[in-house]
Amino acid sequence: MVSDKREVSDFLNLLSAAGITDVVLSPGSRNAPFSISLHGHPRFRVIPVPDERTAGFIALGRAQQTGIPVVLVCTSGTALLNYGPAVAEAFYQRVPLIVASADRPAEWIDHGEGQSIRQSGVLANITRGWADLPESRGAEPQRSANRTAMRRLITLAMGPVPGPVHLNFPLDEPLYRMEEEDQQPGEPYGPVRLPTLHLEACRSDLHQARKVLILAGQLPPDDRLTEALNAFAEDTGAAVMSESHSNLSGPYVLSTIDRLISGWSEETRQRYAPDVLITFGHNIISRRVKSWLRASGCAHWRVDEGGVAEDTYRKLKGVLACTPLEWLRAMDGAAQPSLYARALQEENNRVREAARHWITQAPYSDLTAMDVLLRSIPGGWDFQMGNSSVVRYIQLFETRPDIRYYGNRGVSGIDGVTSTAVGAASVSGRPTLLVTGDIAFLYDSNAFWSELRPHNLRIVVINNRGGGIFRIIDGPSTSAALAPYFETTHERSAGEVAGMYRLPFRQVADGAGLRAGLDWLYNREECSVLEICTPREENDRILKDYFRELKKYQP
Amino acid sequence: MVSDKREVSDFLNLLSAAGITDVVLSPGSRNAPFSISLHGHPRFRVIPVPDERTAGFIALGRAQQTGIPVVLVCTSGTALLNYGPAVAEAFYQRVPLIVASADRPAEWIDHGEGQSIRQSGVLANITRGWADLPESRGAEPQRSANRTAMRRLITLAMGPVPGPVHLNFPLDEPLYRMEEEDQQPGEPYGPVRLPTLHLEACRSDLHQARKVLILAGQLPPDDRLTEALNAFAEDTGAAVMSESHSNLSGPYVLSTIDRLISGWSEETRQRYAPDVLITFGHNIISRRVKSWLRASGCAHWRVDEGGVAEDTYRKLKGVLACTPLEWLRAMDGAAQPSLYARALQEENNRVREAARHWITQAPYSDLTAMDVLLRSIPGGWDFQMGNSSVVRYIQLFETRPDIRYYGNRGVSGIDGVTSTAVGAASVSGRPTLLVTGDIAFLYDSNAFWSELRPHNLRIVVINNRGGGIFRIIDGPSTSAALAPYFETTHERSAGEVAGMYRLPFRQVADGAGLRAGLDWLYNREECSVLEICTPREENDRILKDYFRELKKYQP
Repeated sequence: MVSDKREVSDFLNLLSAAGITDVVLSPGSRNAPFSISLHGHPRFRVIPVPDERTAGFIALGRAQQTGIPVVLVCTSGTALLNYGPAVAEAFYQRVPLIVASADRPAEWIDHGEGQSIRQSGVLANITRGWADLPESRGAEPQRSANRTAMRRLITLAMGPVPGPVHLNFPLDEPLYRMEEEDQQPGEPYGPVRLPTLHLEACRSDLHQARKVLILAGQLPPDDRLTEALNAFAEDTGAAVMSESHSNLSGPYVLSTIDRLISGWSEETRQRYAPDVLITFGHNIISRRVKSWLRASGCAHWRVDEGGVAEDTYRKLKGVLACTPLEWLRAMDGAAQPSLYARALQEENNRVREAARHWITQAPYSDLTAMDVLLRSIPGGWDFQMGNSSVVRYIQLFETRPDIRYYGNRGVSGIDGVTSTAVGAASVSGRPTLLVTGDIAFLYDSNAFWSELRPHNLRIVVINNRGGGIFRIIDGPSTSAALAPYFETTHERSAGEVAGMYRLPFRQVADGAGLRAGLDWLYNREECSVLEICTPREENDRILKDYFRELKKYQP
Repeated sequence: MVSDKREVSDFLNLLSAAGITDVVLSPGSRNAPFSISLHGHPRFRVIPVPDERTAGFIALGRAQQTGIPVVLVCTSGTALLNYGPAVAEAFYQRVPLIVASADRPAEWIDHGEGQSIRQSGVLANITRGWADLPESRGAEPQRSANRTAMRRLITLAMGPVPGPVHLNFPLDEPLYRMEEEDQQPGEPYGPVRLPTLHLEACRSDLHQARKVLILAGQLPPDDRLTEALNAFAEDTGAAVMSESHSNLSGPYVLSTIDRLISGWSEETRQRYAPDVLITFGHNIISRRVKSWLRASGCAHWRVDEGGVAEDTYRKLKGVLACTPLEWLRAMDGAAQPSLYARALQEENNRVREAARHWITQAPYSDLTAMDVLLRSIPGGWDFQMGNSSVVRYIQLFETRPDIRYYGNRGVSGIDGVTSTAVGAASVSGRPTLLVTGDIAFLYDSNAFWSELRPHNLRIVVINNRGGGIFRIIDGPSTSAALAPYFETTHERSAGEVAGMYRLPFRQVADGAGLRAGLDWLYNREECSVLEICTPREENDRILKDYFRELKKYQP
């Protein structure tokens, strides 16, 4: 038996035909037709999550892992607005989500009904598309029009630029009537791809350039891309820079941008400024590399399967609507061999040695704890990176080829970091380490308020007692208003949240404790939390000393 | 010293001139110019709250108490979206909020910058108005245009229909530069009022009607209105129905609508159906009264200072743009004396006696606990009502004239109930009791993550182990899918959240314990939590027995 609401049945059938089976549902009343139809449905896996903000991020984490859209179902009113943060993150991280909100019929909005807001288009700014699907009660042409709109949006969520879409279902009472399942099948979906655009202009630029820089942003792990990129760099002398969430490594990949360029003089910045810049992937973390490239005179070619003209460096010459791998193949033989990359490699080697030497002697702090932590992660694990200072520290260390890096860098919010990791680990099945900050962990404390408690998830909370980010980026640290408007200082512990959900918990506060704590964490067989306390007042001084030290090794 | 951002200075000066001093600020970087200028500012009281969702509701609670807009300041990205739930609630509850979001300059949106989303108009559906305020750097005519837009929005927030507005401040780097304070004063604001519309048609309807029903929704406490309304009812025989959050009482006010009408036969419903319906106030809770009036043939006159044509009952004849008090004065002598109200009074007396008798003998449950609880509240206290089943139980008992009722009934979400009470108590200074449900209390567990811990706030959590609402409204209780898609069942306790914030806590689970627990709670001198556990499986059965009993006393 399923709900007698035809739009709900049609929607579920279309999802099914598209191979979409994963539903995160938040309890409510107006969305009863969804609950009724999904209850015991053989083709869907339904996870109930009470807090819609958390639900959104859990869905994000799951879709991030599978690449297949996850459906979010909520009731009317503020429920939908609580999806906002995760939907925005998915929009910029290009993760497919299908938001299905129950609503009152339009004629009841703004007429004093409870749990009624103007849901139509309320997520328009942060979705790839949206539609209202007024009840047809089976009558044509409304029913067909609704199916057409649903098909358009489900397809849109999947690509060529994946992302969130919003389907708003105004549902009239009675909400609880059922009927035999309507087995009308949905149409199958084929992959959608844009044609590859002309690549000749880019080839020509590469051919004339002496300094070619490839800068990779956030990308899913891809062995074939890693291999092809290293081969291309070897053949041509193009330099490759990446960040941890690029999931790239190999002899030709410079994955510690900030460490390499932080000490550069103006002359060095100019010497290494590329003639041609190639970018792919999304959401570059390093502020330094952005400001360096913006000040350069390079020609920027953007490689983006979706053909979106993102002009991050204000040097955009053109967009190539293909995958990075397709681009590499198309450019085969285009670039001339040069010594540019080798010079950068040598710089990098020198700075790496200096950094390693300095860190082994540095006092216990965020920086040294991150060093130990990153080397401790067992090979083969997934690594979910928290935002704010955590992800910035991670960029100071080489990307490891044997772990997979993820992070909410689409909008870089702290609001759903834990929920995203819970969602991701619950679907990947792989051992997963989340490293997050104290504020983010406290903020998203509802992340465990569902049936999901992935036994394969381990959590490290770096507790520097609040807002360390504002001590390491320029600006706030010079301001008298520092506390409390920038830093969220506190004396709280991640143990409070762990205790509430009965997650095994340990706290460490020095180097010896850290190693023992990590051993404990990796040997647990259930979701567990290790809190690493670091000295708030000293972290930023030590980081500044570190950068000052690196400066000495600059040419 | 203040930020050198002219739009920030102009904004603060205009707020100041309008008498607005209350700011709830969530830490961030892009909003640094606000933090710098507000730091130590003599004319503003700034409360830092890390979780923006909570911050929004705390601001709502404060503005609800003062009637003066509260300013919300956040950084760019998902921060702003976290205000969504509170802004929607404020929109429909008509509470003035001024949202000031920091943003990147428009040319950087959708170009791979972090913490950047399309903030322009992202709250358009749920605000009275919004504007982008691009940086003028002091240059005309941009600076004047921005001031004009700010003035329009600040005025709009204050009335005639108060509500939230959104000012989006794109701010370019550097963000941390300061200058001497710019003392350019803002213009003073005068009150804004719509002219009272023609009242003759309404007078004429009243004159011809035999059955006049006045139905009051959510209203702030107002002794003059209470007095005038009772006098009008005495003179004319008009019946008056209200709900707890109408804050109305007196001999002529029927404040327990559901108890009165739940047992009515179809014939009784028709007998008492009004000829003329007058409504004022907002957000009627009773579903029964709505369905009764929608099925009637009444002429509905809406009294709304803001002149908004809300047609809740689909019987709207006209809107009168005046206050309830002005309407009562204008209608003086218009209605003919009738016996309508007296007949309803007699019904009500009979049902009240039956209900009282039955409850004193009923087993311990949500219903009997609410009876004891409502009678226990000390006179003079403020009463913040939670949503969902809590507020519905409260409607079964007479409105007390000696306490002030509040509740988030604009959108009726559970997401910010605790935060709203924290905000309200922190500014009213009056002793305040919040009664909320277990799910809402767990959902909004970040409510205490700020410096605000009002010593005058006491909290009661009715823990029926989840989702009791879905057992008492029709529909879900008949559905096989009941758990877990409707009910959020759990074995958790409010003590987990209380423990995390070190709030004194007690738990009771029977009638004797309840009385002792309430004594304990009222005699505390700091913010404290009493959890009242009730039997989940029995609550709904007892409530149904109660309504069945009342049916016997119907004519």
